[in-house]
Amino acid sequence: MSSILVTMVAGRAGTYRITSQRVVRGEGLLAHGAEPTHLTVESGHLTVLPSDAAWQLRGATGAQRYTERHELDKLTAVQPGLLRPEATHGAMIAIRKTGAWWALAQDERRAIFEARSRHIADSMRFLPAIARRLYHARELGEGFDFLTWFEFAPEHQALFDELLGQLRASEEWTYVDRELELGLSR
Amino acid sequence: MSSILVTMVAGRAGTYRITSQRVVRGEGLLAHGAEPTHLTVESGHLTVLPSDAAWQLRGATGAQRYTERHELDKLTAVQPGLLRPEATHGAMIAIRKTGAWWALAQDERRAIFEARSRHIADSMRFLPAIARRLYHARELGEGFDFLTWFEFAPEHQALFDELLGQLRASEEWTYVDRELELGLSR
Repeated sequence: MSSILVTMVAGRAGTYRITSQRVVRGEGLLAHGAEPTHLTVESGHLTVLPSDAAWQLRGATGAQRYTERHELDKLTAVQPGLLRPEATHGAMIAIRKTGAWWALAQDERRAIFEARSRHIADSMRFLPAIARRLYHARELGEGFDFLTWFEFAPEHQALFDELLGQLRASEEWTYVDRELELGLSR
Repeated sequence: MSSILVTMVAGRAGTYRITSQRVVRGEGLLAHGAEPTHLTVESGHLTVLPSDAAWQLRGATGAQRYTERHELDKLTAVQPGLLRPEATHGAMIAIRKTGAWWALAQDERRAIFEARSRHIADSMRFLPAIARRLYHARELGEGFDFLTWFEFAPEHQALFDELLGQLRASEEWTYVDRELELGLSR
């Protein structure tokens, strides 16, 4: 179980079409050249970018930071993999959390994350419709702490919007000070 | 509280003299050119290395992954900062943990780390003699998961060796499959 390293590259061509882009909170991403229309997830941490790249964001999968065994077993039983043929819609949500969040001890963050915000328990009903993969970006010096990748079939767009609404209404999200949302399709 | 990003660069000159080098477990580090004699901790993640660099390791500080509030308060009260004038000796311990470790849920890792290995509680008696800073490297795609930096006065060398012995005898350390130890002085 090694870490999966990726570089998300936005440009004028790529695997996914960017169907929407929304700066939910804080600063957006500055594009080099023309506004990007497409996004590609490249394997590894690229040091040389395609010359037409508008921006890049690097991430790495990591171990479970809050999920406990009883939760992990439930999740593992129902969560789908990426790249299901029918899951042609997707989203990339990049967030940064505040210094106050990061200064908390582990038990304090867990209490906000799950006991009070029910991040895991309340997300369970969106499975297996919505596939998800979390990339950590904070240790990479990116301007975001997390890049979350979602994939779902077009008929689950409303369900996905509901999931986002639920997360954003949580106590956990009061610690988010920068958020970018990209809608995607392939 | 943002992440502190560093690049440790080994070469033929630098801030710290490498007084010892020991591959405790697994593969060592392949040096480019002559064996390094010195180590410097540069700020940031360098993309261009000095031409005489033998190797580099990048790391980033992160939030507390296991430490709970009651432990953090105790630690904060007694742990010293880096660069105390008398703390001219030091060490850099690089470790990698197994896939089995990373596949565990958060509560399982916490139980091994603290309830059974007493990583925090048993390290407390080495404070404030030994200053310590943990850098995460796994998300950076380095060959190690953690780089731990230690600083202490020469008269505390035996105490430091005791700390290392204690850590290596713990259940937690059975999950370590690669470990490199550098002794340092400035």
